[in-house]
Amino acid sequence: MYLSQLFIPLIKNLPTEAKIKSHQLMIRTGMIKQSSSGIYSWLPLGFKVMKKIEQIVREEQNHIGAQEMLMPTIQSSEIWKESGRYDDYGDEMLRIKDRQGREMLYGPTNEELITDVFRSSVKSYKSLPQILYHIQWKFRDEIRPRFGVMRCKEFYMKDAYSFDISDEDAKKSYNKMFYSYLKTFSRIGLKAIPMSAATGPIGGDLSHEFIILADTGESKIFADKKIFDIDINKYKFDDASLTRMRNDFTNIYAATDEKYNKDEFNNKVSKDNQVITKGIEVGHIFYFGDKYSKPMNCFIDDKNGKKITVKMGSYGIGVSRLVAAVIEANYNNDVMKWPKTISPFDVVIIPSFTKNNTENLRKAEKVYLELKKQNIDVLLDDVDENMSNKFKKHDLIGVPFQIIIGSKSEGDNLEFKELNSTSEILSLSNIKSKLRI
Amino acid sequence: MYLSQLFIPLIKNLPTEAKIKSHQLMIRTGMIKQSSSGIYSWLPLGFKVMKKIEQIVREEQNHIGAQEMLMPTIQSSEIWKESGRYDDYGDEMLRIKDRQGREMLYGPTNEELITDVFRSSVKSYKSLPQILYHIQWKFRDEIRPRFGVMRCKEFYMKDAYSFDISDEDAKKSYNKMFYSYLKTFSRIGLKAIPMSAATGPIGGDLSHEFIILADTGESKIFADKKIFDIDINKYKFDDASLTRMRNDFTNIYAATDEKYNKDEFNNKVSKDNQVITKGIEVGHIFYFGDKYSKPMNCFIDDKNGKKITVKMGSYGIGVSRLVAAVIEANYNNDVMKWPKTISPFDVVIIPSFTKNNTENLRKAEKVYLELKKQNIDVLLDDVDENMSNKFKKHDLIGVPFQIIIGSKSEGDNLEFKELNSTSEILSLSNIKSKLRI
Repeated sequence: MYLSQLFIPLIKNLPTEAKIKSHQLMIRTGMIKQSSSGIYSWLPLGFKVMKKIEQIVREEQNHIGAQEMLMPTIQSSEIWKESGRYDDYGDEMLRIKDRQGREMLYGPTNEELITDVFRSSVKSYKSLPQILYHIQWKFRDEIRPRFGVMRCKEFYMKDAYSFDISDEDAKKSYNKMFYSYLKTFSRIGLKAIPMSAATGPIGGDLSHEFIILADTGESKIFADKKIFDIDINKYKFDDASLTRMRNDFTNIYAATDEKYNKDEFNNKVSKDNQVITKGIEVGHIFYFGDKYSKPMNCFIDDKNGKKITVKMGSYGIGVSRLVAAVIEANYNNDVMKWPKTISPFDVVIIPSFTKNNTENLRKAEKVYLELKKQNIDVLLDDVDENMSNKFKKHDLIGVPFQIIIGSKSEGDNLEFKELNSTSEILSLSNIKSKLRI
Repeated sequence: MYLSQLFIPLIKNLPTEAKIKSHQLMIRTGMIKQSSSGIYSWLPLGFKVMKKIEQIVREEQNHIGAQEMLMPTIQSSEIWKESGRYDDYGDEMLRIKDRQGREMLYGPTNEELITDVFRSSVKSYKSLPQILYHIQWKFRDEIRPRFGVMRCKEFYMKDAYSFDISDEDAKKSYNKMFYSYLKTFSRIGLKAIPMSAATGPIGGDLSHEFIILADTGESKIFADKKIFDIDINKYKFDDASLTRMRNDFTNIYAATDEKYNKDEFNNKVSKDNQVITKGIEVGHIFYFGDKYSKPMNCFIDDKNGKKITVKMGSYGIGVSRLVAAVIEANYNNDVMKWPKTISPFDVVIIPSFTKNNTENLRKAEKVYLELKKQNIDVLLDDVDENMSNKFKKHDLIGVPFQIIIGSKSEGDNLEFKELNSTSEILSLSNIKSKLRI
């Protein structure tokens, strides 16, 4: 894509409400545009990043055998009355009356709706275990939306739901999802720490938050630094190994302020290993047994033909929030560098040219076509602007690799730079193989 | 995927409200489940088909240079007051008050919101032409939702918006989209006819509906049968060729009842060529100039620095409706056959086996693994059920190709069947190449 054609409104004057760096960067580089309080449009640059994150989340859900489906955004109040949450949920629920006066709502989460789908579809233990998920817009009518897409009203979430015949089996599903989440965040270039968490309005007695460290985080974090050293790749995808994995994580102290206990922290963690910092929640998993299946009469026949309530868990990842979280983790000293796996483009070509001398631009166009042929997603900066401004701009746009066509590029040897590193002179075929890894 | 693990609730007793064949089939094969009046969940089988259609729509939009973005579902009433449509839209608009009493709505379409994005982002003729699109859920509070996802409340739509500096340029964008639509429907296996149409609440004076023929359609169609013979592949993607293309289509009589004129029909079309039938609208394109840009002050500077209103068009494809439309066009005599490009699976393996003799099932599993290795998306029917029931079931699920592992399959020679044809005995490698085409 040519930069002059890309719909990317770069903003110089930041709105005063943009207080954290991800919000500032997303506005400055035209990734998002606010349409009303806490509600945003995703412009092409932001959209591309979000879609790449969505695809990684999807692949890691499919990998553990979860099946994708899609529930609607607008739900009837009736199922929420069945579960008892219609009144509990309070003002954060966007309540709607349709033209016939029926009470509807914009789903803030989907435990009730998936239970309704399940109870009318599955009758026998033979169909279990089952994990279903969808990636859909949710709405929470935040009283004070802030921090851009980090705490907004309309947000994009992956939520999965597991169905098992016993607590014991349900824990296996929980562990699979625990594993899937660690894999997902690692592919997005984030180090996420699972922490024992409060269950809030979802309910249940077993829950973990996945937190990435960031100074701007809303959660205060107390952890043993050993938890950062666990290598997820050493676990196999079988129940015994996954049980070990969860034990390894949960045996090391890590808690948000909600669950923090000072004495426990000091007893369990030596002073040298104590990490006290802030973090951003990017995922949250819950096991709540029959909290919904019981009031909503979601029964199945067990082996002996006896009706039992199905045991359920739910598992959320904030897909739109992750875009901001990645920026918080990767935007430092006025340079944003997208992880390769989710960068909006694989590489940007930056030619030095003027109206009167477009030789480098023409050369850039040849390199562009050459890379496109290899299915490399290239951005070509064809804007007539001085190089110093261009570099500043691309420090913000954050494509991790640059090909600079200026005085240092001669013939087939081109100046190639990884953001935050020094540039080197490489042949085009060397550049291609670097980009393909 | 093994059929026993697939979340596909097959329903035997049809609800009485399912009156058209697409609605019936989608309920019977567990593609969708109604959650409340006119609102559906998409279960895995239906979801897979819809996502494949979405991807074809996306590719054909990108192909003409349209850029993808995403606008939110919930909009502020303010922009609709600016355009003057807030009162006009009537009861079909789902109106919402948030917790602070602000008037919001669930977007039924996005002309206002995209104009708002555009006016704050683009200031100069240099940035035009531009086409932006998104694929997002919409809501229309239908007084009488019916026919399943064909006329429902919450629906999935691709809507694109073009921005040009003159009427003349805008017609070029219109023609590009006209071409993109014909390509899109053809890749989905549908013969869609563009017909001059009324503009309704969107406005403007130039508009075409894209209609596919189906007995259950809500629109009555009057056309010259020559229009079915135009080959879209003979046109090149340049302005002159696309102008010719639109002329070729619009010079042949084709109209829905809204625009039908009996005398004109009889004068222009010989009796032998007159086709009078019914159809389903699957796309609708509009050119409306400055209908929105003028009241909403969406100005740009032209070459001479003069402020002019931008000229806009909008272009919709009903992605969720297309799933039903494809069924209406391809489900006959109790057999559904999905077009290859959007089938939920590439092939289904149907072994004949009993609890006491699972030899064919084991053979099927080997074939399954072999095909999976080639990235062929296979469904394996591992359900213990007699073959006659299995065939009836797969006539409905509609995977176009079957490998039948029974008495006719010996060693590496397998019974291979395309739905609605007779079976043949082929080697696995022959089957692989047939599936890859």
